[in-house]
Amino acid sequence: MVKVGIAGGSGYGGTELIHILLRHPHVDIAWVSSQQHVGKAVAELYPHLRGFLDHLKFSAVQDVPASSLDLLFLALPHGHAMKMVPGLPDRLAVIDLSGDFRISDPAVFEEYYGIPLEDPEVQKRFVYGLPEINREDVRRARYVSNPGCFATATILALYPLVKGGWVEGPVFVDTKTGSSGAGNSPTAGTHHPRRTNSLFPYKPFRHQHLPEIVQALGHPANRVVFQTYSAPFVRGIFASHYMTLRRPASPEEVRGLFMDHYGSEPFIRWVADKPDVNYVRHSNFTDIGAAVDGTYLIVWSVLDNLQKGAAGQAVQNMNIMCGFPEGTGLNLAPVHP
Amino acid sequence: MVKVGIAGGSGYGGTELIHILLRHPHVDIAWVSSQQHVGKAVAELYPHLRGFLDHLKFSAVQDVPASSLDLLFLALPHGHAMKMVPGLPDRLAVIDLSGDFRISDPAVFEEYYGIPLEDPEVQKRFVYGLPEINREDVRRARYVSNPGCFATATILALYPLVKGGWVEGPVFVDTKTGSSGAGNSPTAGTHHPRRTNSLFPYKPFRHQHLPEIVQALGHPANRVVFQTYSAPFVRGIFASHYMTLRRPASPEEVRGLFMDHYGSEPFIRWVADKPDVNYVRHSNFTDIGAAVDGTYLIVWSVLDNLQKGAAGQAVQNMNIMCGFPEGTGLNLAPVHP
Amino acid sequence: MVKVGIAGGSGYGGTELIHILLRHPHVDIAWVSSQQHVGKAVAELYPHLRGFLDHLKFSAVQDVPASSLDLLFLALPHGHAMKMVPGLPDRLAVIDLSGDFRISDPAVFEEYYGIPLEDPEVQKRFVYGLPEINREDVRRARYVSNPGCFATATILALYPLVKGGWVEGPVFVDTKTGSSGAGNSPTAGTHHPRRTNSLFPYKPFRHQHLPEIVQALGHPANRVVFQTYSAPFVRGIFASHYMTLRRPASPEEVRGLFMDHYGSEPFIRWVADKPDVNYVRHSNFTDIGAAVDGTYLIVWSVLDNLQKGAAGQAVQNMNIMCGFPEGTGLNLAPVHP
Amino acid sequence: MVKVGIAGGSGYGGTELIHILLRHPHVDIAWVSSQQHVGKAVAELYPHLRGFLDHLKFSAVQDVPASSLDLLFLALPHGHAMKMVPGLPDRLAVIDLSGDFRISDPAVFEEYYGIPLEDPEVQKRFVYGLPEINREDVRRARYVSNPGCFATATILALYPLVKGGWVEGPVFVDTKTGSSGAGNSPTAGTHHPRRTNSLFPYKPFRHQHLPEIVQALGHPANRVVFQTYSAPFVRGIFASHYMTLRRPASPEEVRGLFMDHYGSEPFIRWVADKPDVNYVRHSNFTDIGAAVDGTYLIVWSVLDNLQKGAAGQAVQNMNIMCGFPEGTGLNLAPVHP
Repeated sequence: MVKVGIAGGSGYGGTELIHILLRHPHVDIAWVSSQQHVGKAVAELYPHLRGFLDHLKFSAVQDVPASSLDLLFLALPHGHAMKMVPGLPDRLAVIDLSGDFRISDPAVFEEYYGIPLEDPEVQKRFVYGLPEINREDVRRARYVSNPGCFATATILALYPLVKGGWVEGPVFVDTKTGSSGAGNSPTAGTHHPRRTNSLFPYKPFRHQHLPEIVQALGHPANRVVFQTYSAPFVRGIFASHYMTLRRPASPEEVRGLFMDHYGSEPFIRWVADKPDVNYVRHSNFTDIGAAVDGTYLIVWSVLDNLQKGAAGQAVQNMNIMCGFPEGTGLNLAPVHP
Repeated sequence: MVKVGIAGGSGYGGTELIHILLRHPHVDIAWVSSQQHVGKAVAELYPHLRGFLDHLKFSAVQDVPASSLDLLFLALPHGHAMKMVPGLPDRLAVIDLSGDFRISDPAVFEEYYGIPLEDPEVQKRFVYGLPEINREDVRRARYVSNPGCFATATILALYPLVKGGWVEGPVFVDTKTGSSGAGNSPTAGTHHPRRTNSLFPYKPFRHQHLPEIVQALGHPANRVVFQTYSAPFVRGIFASHYMTLRRPASPEEVRGLFMDHYGSEPFIRWVADKPDVNYVRHSNFTDIGAAVDGTYLIVWSVLDNLQKGAAGQAVQNMNIMCGFPEGTGLNLAPVHP
Repeated sequence: MVKVGIAGGSGYGGTELIHILLRHPHVDIAWVSSQQHVGKAVAELYPHLRGFLDHLKFSAVQDVPASSLDLLFLALPHGHAMKMVPGLPDRLAVIDLSGDFRISDPAVFEEYYGIPLEDPEVQKRFVYGLPEINREDVRRARYVSNPGCFATATILALYPLVKGGWVEGPVFVDTKTGSSGAGNSPTAGTHHPRRTNSLFPYKPFRHQHLPEIVQALGHPANRVVFQTYSAPFVRGIFASHYMTLRRPASPEEVRGLFMDHYGSEPFIRWVADKPDVNYVRHSNFTDIGAAVDGTYLIVWSVLDNLQKGAAGQAVQNMNIMCGFPEGTGLNLAPVHP
Repeated sequence: MVKVGIAGGSGYGGTELIHILLRHPHVDIAWVSSQQHVGKAVAELYPHLRGFLDHLKFSAVQDVPASSLDLLFLALPHGHAMKMVPGLPDRLAVIDLSGDFRISDPAVFEEYYGIPLEDPEVQKRFVYGLPEINREDVRRARYVSNPGCFATATILALYPLVKGGWVEGPVFVDTKTGSSGAGNSPTAGTHHPRRTNSLFPYKPFRHQHLPEIVQALGHPANRVVFQTYSAPFVRGIFASHYMTLRRPASPEEVRGLFMDHYGSEPFIRWVADKPDVNYVRHSNFTDIGAAVDGTYLIVWSVLDNLQKGAAGQAVQNMNIMCGFPEGTGLNLAPVHP
């Protein structure tokens, strides 16, 4: 059994992690922290978990029993992990769900996150944990930086196209998130009377997931126009990617390109022109589909922001790092309706 | 033209008041306050109002131009109106939307609101503004206390039955509110991820609208078991009233009783067994219906919590006080879908 | 491995059954029928299941390979199972999810379902499969009739009170269902523009789940006033039960009564005054709570209508019949947000 | 008073027309038809209208009292109006809300609507009723073809840019509709369990509103990639337009362009980077905003699909045709929350 700790277990990302790890046969959740809820039982804060971990209480993050854990998930707000990691023992594996270790260029990090990098050297020890792109790096890593939810959706949608040199000119990304993406603290943007019957953009051109997309696609000439929206569902990222191709392609050719890249991936499914948030909810899948009309291409990617967009992918990374079958604890079918 | 001011115009009740008064032909909105937003344009805080009152800015409540106003609506949090009213000039008509002046018994007020009454003598100057029950008192009043949203629904549903002596034993009230009833400040209970797919009770047996219901029904022996719920829609009160009758009644007799009381009321409609939040939304109507099976009776009442449950009823009261036709500014059909 | 078939696998109940059985370690889904979709792949109709049972196609119900199956789930519309069962081989275990075999009195069945019972003798071979009430009967049964979703919620809420003789006079039941309860065929009541921001009653006093409630509570003098509502969420039954007690009770006494009955039940949790649809979703739990004020008692029960209200309970019954641990395939925590 | 008739008054477009005309001071609704509901009272089918037009019943469309009407609104399914119009007396003004008379090229019409044009000569008598683009033509017209909801949003967003020659290369349109856009007949796409927590595309590249967009923009070289989505709200079109500009522009320049075109328009409001479905609901406004980053431009347009996208715009056209102030009956502020 791998003994894991979760720093920041009271947020939605942390809670989803608990939910997944509860059904993981090789993991023991040994410790969970929450600065806001020290001493409170996890099942008191999250009553849906009553009966599953009634003994477990939130600790203070500074009380992390680092020497008795095998792996530590960090699900803290941006800026906290990079202060905590240098003090952890080398032998402790770390998977960080924040943006702290995703960006290798300190100037870019500061531009998008508004704070300086604590220590660029620590940064370099982290591998960007998107298994479909760099599984082998994850396998050898002790420190993994888990991608952002929007970034996962868009990188997976564009990677084969960019690598294959199919794209001419800019890609316009119109990407919608469910309200759980904003976390469990009530805000104006998640206030039910405002959110439930509407749709509205935020952070025009400047969402902090953009630099990790550009970095992962690894193509300096690539131009991504990236626009995020708040949508009136709870779970899900639905990302639409609009672009012009260098030459006309048929639906079969587009499908072929994606199959070549992802045909054996356990968590990617091809859905042609039928992407739907309903079909990935509560699962670790990214459904990818497309429609093409001559040189115009639309690629859709859909995922559950708390699973493949956060906790599910973190467990997928853990499985790879620990040598477990990659889908352990993640093999459930999406739930619909 | 009646010059009106609105103290507390940035809450949902105040905003709805502005919305209705904008189309009232005899009213000029001369002043609006908000402690949080002093100096900000109303249309900046509420962009849906852009183009309708672009000149109007929020003032501080203490800067009320009492001598130049004819009527003042108070849409402040509980506890504020009772401090403000004694300092207002006698000639200024007041309609208060809070609970401050609804309860005549100081002990009962303190029990349910958790604060003492400022001055029970001021209390006595207020008339309870439920026109269907005491229109003539409202007509003669300068000070009107506007009923609570839940209270309006339940009093209107039960009044004919209680007055007619039809009820045997307790009445059980199961009443659901939309999220706008909680106001425009985000809270755990209105957080979209929690609210939008659920239903949950709050304040078992002890909602603060209960004492005004008991007081208005005016029947000491009457027993009302009152349970409120948060429902996943934005606007609406849907109240279900369960009871046993002294003797069996037919659907026609039940309808007859309500028609006798409300047949000429401009804002009450009989809906038999088809009550639906959809059919009152954005209107000042209370739809009432019922189903009966021998001595068992279910009565439903449905209204828009921001209209008949707050701002609409306040304008209805103003119309009566000022001698305008009662439906002025309120004569719009509900909107569906 | 138990070889199971599902007749009526394209409805929401059948699909949920497939979803649960996919993760059941001792079950092989050998056959699924759908009259509407003969020859179509299950994963084509339900794209969320892509990758999980791609080989499985819908057959015609009359082609049931009865001799090669161990257990047959019937998830057909009311009236179909009672025609099909007499033709099945005796050795085949059957769990029926419709209302066909729930009511022992033919006159009552006809009154509520509008059709006559095919054969009252066949009826008698079925055990009512509510494990918390009659687990031992289920254990010995070959034929199990799975309870209705509303009935499960209300019977579990009232059983200890009625058996203990606590109730004085009628119980008023105000019970709300999510839209998935209406099945996967679009209707006026599930049309999004009408359903999503509203709440409305249907079938006043006469829902077809009422007779199985009365029958299960087994108390001729008991009177249940039963009112169902359509609520704007997808999954969930939220049932509120209002009643007068013979003598005043404290919250602790009420809790004690329910703990005495259900303390060791794997799928019942006590939630005091915090019931919430969010906390049972996608799980087999029934959360029960209560609030009491002297002799007035409100009992709440909450469950997922497709799990404990249908497919989950059917699998629970199968586990009992087959001697598997009762929670096999059902031990997942509810999902929130 | 203008005597109007409405053919197809039971659909959502027709019902919204009734709702608006009820408050129009110069209009008398003299006749309404519905093939499905001949003889039924309008207020029986649409209970929210109880008390407003209780005398009005649905007639059969062939019984149109053409000689006694001044103006006829046609809100029929595609393909019906073009059969009906040739039989109407010349003196009767007509505003058609379907797609029948929007497309001037018969081949294009047939390609997108799947049926041939009845009579291209009749087609030519119709003016495309988008007042912000061709108000003077509408003023002189007797026959007006009301634009599609998606088309209104996209034409208004792109017209100043295309006319000004600002756009380089294709414009990608990602446009979302509320469920009321699909009409009042339940379908798989509006089934609450599927629609309410999701988002999904339909008709890739081929929505029938595309040809009227291309035609209205009147720029043969212009290329519009048009993708429609079903969103989980009831009312609203939220359209995002992505493009590259010929040369970099500042936010002020973009705003200036739109102000130059629309600054005096009564139903267009500039919202910069804060477009929101909430702020146009139940009103005739189109809110337009934008964000620009060098040569990349995103333009948003938001409207209520049943108002500016259908019935509101039809009344706006009627007001222009009849010489009434353009906002008569349409001057209500949007409603929020």
